[in-house]
This record gives sequence, structure tokens and C-alpha cells, in this order.
Amino acid sequence: MKVFDKDTMDSACKHCHIKDPGQVTIMESAALAACLEKETGIPVIHMELGSPGLAPNRIGLEAEKKALDTANVSAYPPTDGLPVLKEAASRFAKAFLNLDFSPARCIPTTGSMLGAFAAFAACTQCTPGKNRVLVLEPSFSANKQQMAILGIEWKGIEIAECRGPRLESRLRSELSRGDVAAIIYSSPNNPSWMCLSDSELQTIAKVAGEAGTVIIEDQAYFCMDFRQEGYDIPYCAPYPPSAARYTGDIIILLSGSKIFSYAGQRIGVMYIGRELYERCYPALASRYGGSGMFGLTITGGILDMITSGCTASTQWGLAAMMDASCDGTVNFVNDTRIYAERASRMKEIFSSGGFNISYPDDAGGPVGDGFFFTLSYPGMDSNALISELMAYGISTVSLDKMGSSRHGVRVCSSRIRPDQFTLLRERVEQFSKDHPISKE
Amino acid sequence: MKVFDKDTMDSACKHCHIKDPGQVTIMESAALAACLEKETGIPVIHMELGSPGLAPNRIGLEAEKKALDTANVSAYPPTDGLPVLKEAASRFAKAFLNLDFSPARCIPTTGSMLGAFAAFAACTQCTPGKNRVLVLEPSFSANKQQMAILGIEWKGIEIAECRGPRLESRLRSELSRGDVAAIIYSSPNNPSWMCLSDSELQTIAKVAGEAGTVIIEDQAYFCMDFRQEGYDIPYCAPYPPSAARYTGDIIILLSGSKIFSYAGQRIGVMYIGRELYERCYPALASRYGGSGMFGLTITGGILDMITSGCTASTQWGLAAMMDASCDGTVNFVNDTRIYAERASRMKEIFSSGGFNISYPDDAGGPVGDGFFFTLSYPGMDSNALISELMAYGISTVSLDKMGSSRHGVRVCSSRIRPDQFTLLRERVEQFSKDHPISKE
Repeated sequence: MKVFDKDTMDSACKHCHIKDPGQVTIMESAALAACLEKETGIPVIHMELGSPGLAPNRIGLEAEKKALDTANVSAYPPTDGLPVLKEAASRFAKAFLNLDFSPARCIPTTGSMLGAFAAFAACTQCTPGKNRVLVLEPSFSANKQQMAILGIEWKGIEIAECRGPRLESRLRSELSRGDVAAIIYSSPNNPSWMCLSDSELQTIAKVAGEAGTVIIEDQAYFCMDFRQEGYDIPYCAPYPPSAARYTGDIIILLSGSKIFSYAGQRIGVMYIGRELYERCYPALASRYGGSGMFGLTITGGILDMITSGCTASTQWGLAAMMDASCDGTVNFVNDTRIYAERASRMKEIFSSGGFNISYPDDAGGPVGDGFFFTLSYPGMDSNALISELMAYGISTVSLDKMGSSRHGVRVCSSRIRPDQFTLLRERVEQFSKDHPISKE
Repeated sequence: MKVFDKDTMDSACKHCHIKDPGQVTIMESAALAACLEKETGIPVIHMELGSPGLAPNRIGLEAEKKALDTANVSAYPPTDGLPVLKEAASRFAKAFLNLDFSPARCIPTTGSMLGAFAAFAACTQCTPGKNRVLVLEPSFSANKQQMAILGIEWKGIEIAECRGPRLESRLRSELSRGDVAAIIYSSPNNPSWMCLSDSELQTIAKVAGEAGTVIIEDQAYFCMDFRQEGYDIPYCAPYPPSAARYTGDIIILLSGSKIFSYAGQRIGVMYIGRELYERCYPALASRYGGSGMFGLTITGGILDMITSGCTASTQWGLAAMMDASCDGTVNFVNDTRIYAERASRMKEIFSSGGFNISYPDDAGGPVGDGFFFTLSYPGMDSNALISELMAYGISTVSLDKMGSSRHGVRVCSSRIRPDQFTLLRERVEQFSKDHPISKE
């Protein structure tokens, strides 16, 4: 028996202005789940939003409180960020990536969301005719919505089908026309949790460089490939892979939301490679005035025109957390390792119920356990699965909405409560019982 | 003698990547002033940035600190804002505008800057072919930069030339082709400080309504027409004028930056009229999915895709300040009245030095004293004046950059320190001595 019957589902969908529960966006899925809970009093197990499930980092909170008491939060923050955060972000990149980004090229953004938005705008406006974006799929669906706001054309390619040695020729064929302004990927990947290898990133840097394509590297889940030991020691190898080792035509988006459980405060940092930052584009000069220098345009011409800088106290907060990480007093890698444990337990439960991982492989080995994983169920497409799981009190997101060519849903391991694993097992067992897998 | 000689000015311009000091934007002017101060140790009197010159409201700071300790700031804030702020904003509109905006239609934004940006995107995407914006000039230059990011065409009309009975026919001729998606104005006006009257706003509402044009009313300087007594009493007439009394096809942008001296924390509220909020546009549905309802699209499809909500603690802060204002424990009108006193003293000093007010009149009477005013000097155009004033240690913004057809600069009264009036008088006297006005 389902947790929510058809009438309850229909009424909740209507209330949330949702026509088809198989077609919902992430936020609609969250709204639908909240509505079902409110109407019935029955808890939904929330696996839809990629929202942290841990308490915010205490060092950040205390630094924010101190800033509210002592810093000048009445004046507009500087266009390109408060010096305290620019310095800390530069140090953080050295400590945990072994990369040199001068403070000028470390730019606070109102979450990586704004960083990506501004990056899309800036990159596609540099050169007339070079205005498309290549998305490595599956991907964070919001990036495409951002491009819809800006009217930017994009194309997705399924990365799982061209890993390793096949990557170079595939990329080359996509970039050869010279009209691709930027390529975007997240690694670890949202939603599949695949991690691009150092040699794959080197290939991307090489081919993108030859085509004059800027790389937008979303490091929202920085150092969260928990298969790899040692990422947590500042100024010590190993360091996580990044295409920035191989090119200066890159923007790295680093978010405080996941690594410091700080999503509610909306703060991230955009790192811009030196070559890109300093290059002058006549098209930027004619659109925004000034010299057309990329770095000055994206700060003064774009970011400042969208939010007039980032919340001052929150910049102090992130600066303190980054500094404490460099000092070794905060271990943000260990702090979030529990997501891997939760993912492992959840995968075991779903696997016992006949579910499969939609993206089981990663560069030859099995995909790691972390913040996200994917699930499919024999005989069900993405839309049927997300809708049916919701009826069993399990809220997810369709891979169909994330540019995937595979069937399934994305599951986030962050928000399941320790006391909900038993409930999850019961619901998954009931789901399996009600949906017998035909043994052909 | 000038405060900064030609070599010093040239070198500072070069350092700030500024080609012509007469052509600077607001942020460039601020950067140039800061650079001159750093290089010479001589203070510049800052009149360029419209940044508050008072301490941030204490009630907001305390509420933020409490939220950091007790609220869930680890999770993403809701797409359409935290209920506490939506409720407070709804109450605030009733108390100080006598207008009914349900909490659903009160949407927090990362400053009014983001509110305007999202409004431009949404309004120009509702109906194919209806995609231009009409700007009542002079105006906040950043709005045009925002439209440059989005690739939106705009046209400006000088409002000072069509006040009162001339307004209707002028507007009608601009809107008659039906291709104007939105009209934007600020009142009190940035930079001239003119305030549109109730009957002028009624005219705008009528003509815009007939043309299907949305009104974007920027109330960044809410209740700061200090000529009018009584705006500070909640739930009591008089109320400041607003076109929202006459139409539901409106977006009001209300910022915490000026009225609560809270610019550094980046928070504002977008109020959407009922008719606009509820209307469904097929073009929005096809671009963003869902029903195409304006209110749901601008929150879930646009604002959420730019910043994923607003900083949680700051939403608690603004909510507390709005609630305290409604309760009468904060008087934000009296709190900012000192700007009018400063403006009056500054105008007297400049007037003694032979300066004129570029926009001296407002609806038949003299323009009021407040956050901004305008200045011109006989025989000098905007570019010469801004550049020459900077050489005398007075940093301003060119009216030329603000869509004005008149010569002059914008002056902000907020940041001059009490001990700087004597210095200002000395510099203005020197300026006048060095620039004798020919008596023809």
C-alpha cells in the first residue's frame, strides 16, 4: 500500500500548481513533499534538495556575529569583495588545491549560483558569434535555467559515454566550430557523483584551450570524493584534481554551502585564472564601457550590477572558516564525511529492494559514496519512478530533468535523519512488494 | 591651487584603469578617490557613492545575531523568502503605504539591485515583441548596466521636461506602439531628488495600464521626501505616493539599504501587484516550464536561479526592523532626517561658491533636501565638472552617466563627516577663485 493515495497526491499537486508529478523541478518536488507532510502529518523522507543536513560551521557563525558588532555593515561592500575574504580565499586555494590565485582574482559571490550565472553572462559576451555553452551531462539543472534567463544556447553531452581516452575526440568535435564560449561541469558530478580524473581534466584544458573556450569548473562538492584519503591536510599532497592546473582560461566556482554547511547564508567564491582575468575583449568594452578586461568587467560590470556585492557579515564568516581550514583548526573534509556513510547505508537499503545505481561506474571503478547518488528501478522510466517514490513517501529528483540519457532519480544523502533509516527500509520494501520485478 | 595636481591625477587614473576622469562610473569614481587618498594621504570628501553614512539599525543586527544562533542557516532559504520576512514586509506595506500586499507577493531579494534585475528579465520575457523598457530620466545608471547584461533595449525620457499635465501625452506617445514591457522610475528620484506627485503616478498607472506596460517603482528612498511631515507614523495618513494605489500591474522595489542603513547586508523586498503576480504568460511557461504565472516564474524560475534565495540571517534582520517600525519602536524616517540637514548645509556652501542646482524645481516648488542633489557650474559641462571637482578633493558622479540632458554632477549628502564642512567650504572657495564666472 502506498503512503499517499491517489486523491492525496492529486490534491497536493493541485495545491502546488503541479500538472504532472513526474515532471517536477527540484523546488517543486520539495514543495510537493512539504505540502503532503502538512496535509497528512506523515513525514516524507527528503532526498530531493541538495541542502546540507548538518549544523552550520560554528566558526563562521561566530565570525559573522563579531562582524555585525564591529565591521561597517552599513556601507555597500566592495564590488570585488571584502579584502578579508579575498585574502582567505587565496590562501585556501593554495592550501587545498596547491594553486596560486592572487586575492584580486578571488571574488566573493552570493553563492556559487550567482558565480555560475555571472560566468555564463560574461563568457558568452566576450566574442561575437562565440556564444554557446557546452554542458557535460548529467548536470545541475539550474545552470540551464540560468541560461534560459540570459537567452544562451547550450548543448549537453553525456559524459559517462566518453570517459577516458574517448573524451578528447568527442570534445574536439563539439568545440571545433569555434562557437562554444564555455564548457561547464561539476566534479564530483551533480547528480551522478562521478569524478573527472586528472588526465581527463588535462584533456579538457587542452582541447578547450585550442578552441578558445573558457572552462567553468563547479567545485560545489570540493574535496568530497571521500574515496581519496588526505585531502584534508592543508598544504600537503594529495590535492583534488582541477583543470586549473593546466589552464588559466578557467573559472572555478567554490561554494561554502556544502563544505561548511552554510547554504542558508549564501556565499561562495569565484576563482578566475590569470590569463582569463587579464584578457581584454573589445565586445565587453563596448557593452559595459571601460577597458573590456574580463576580470574588471565580471566584477564591476556584471556581479556588482546584479547584487551590489555580497552580504558583508557572511563574507567575514566564510573568511574565518577558510582561514581556520588553512590553520588546521577546521577539518571540513572530515566534517562532511558522514554523507558518505549515509549514502552507503541508503544504497544498501535500495539495493536490497531491487533498485540499481543509474551511474554505477567511475573511471573504471565503482562510483564513490558522497552527497548524491542515482537510482533506477527495472521497468520504470524517470518520470514514473519519481512520481511513484513520492507516493511511498520518498522525495527525489528525476534524472530526466538533469540532462541524463539514463533512467532514474537523483538521491541526496544529506538530509535523512538517523532515525529514518528503518522507515526508509520499510517504505522501500513495500515499494518492491507492490512493484514486482519481472524475471525475464 | 588644486588639491591634486595633474601628475597625481594622471597617475591615479592609470592605476585605476581609467582613461578619462570625466567619464567615470560611480564605482570608478569611488576607486579613483580611494586611490588618490591612499597615494597622497589627503582626504577626499566623498559624495559619489550613494552609501549610507549612519550606523546600521541595531534591531536588525541583534535579530541577525539571534538567527545565527537559533535559526536553521545551514539549509537553503525558501525560494520566495522566509515566512518571517514575508509577513513583516506585508505588514510594513500596510503600515507605511496603506496598501495590501499578501505575504506571498512580498519577495525578499539580495538588495533592490537584484529585484530590479529580475524585474527587467521577467517583464521583458512575458510577451514576444513587447521587450523594451522606458526609463524616466535622470536615473540610476546601474539599471541600464543591468539591461546591458540581459541585452534589453531601453529608451530614456527626461521627466523634468514633462511634469504635471504634459506627462500623459508624452507617455502615451512613448507607449503607443505596444512594445514597451516596463517603465521604471525612482521617486524620490536618483539623482535629482524630484518626487513624482500622486496625480503624476495616477497618470503613469493609467497610461501604462492601457498599453499593457508593467510599472517598476523603485522606492529605494522610501519616505525620504522630508518636506512632508507625518510619514513616520504607522497606520496613519499621510502615506507616500505610489502608483500601486492605481494599478496591480506593478512591482515596487523597497530596499533596507537606505532606510535602515543596512546596505552592507544586501537585503530588500520586491512587492508584486496582485494582477501581475497571478497573470499567466505562455511565453514564460515555454521558457521556464510550469504554468507561466508571473509570480511563480519570477521567484522559482528567475530569482532562485540567480542567488538561490537571500542570506537567511539578513532576512531575519530586515523582518525585525520592519516589525519594529510597524510597532513604532523604530522611526526610520527620523533616523535618516539628518541627510536633509547635511544636504541643506552642503547646498548653501556650493551656492556661495557660485554653483547652481541642476534640477532646482519639483512639481512647482523647490526640490527638497535629502539623500541626493545635483550641482552645475557656469560654463562647465558634466565631464569637466566631475573631473575638476575631483582635483579639488570632491568626489561626485556625472549627470551625463545618469541619462540627464542637463549639465552637472550628482552629490550624495550621506557620507560627509561633521568635521568636513569647513574643509568643503575651503575647497569650494578655492574652486570658485580658480574658476571665475564670466559676467556677461
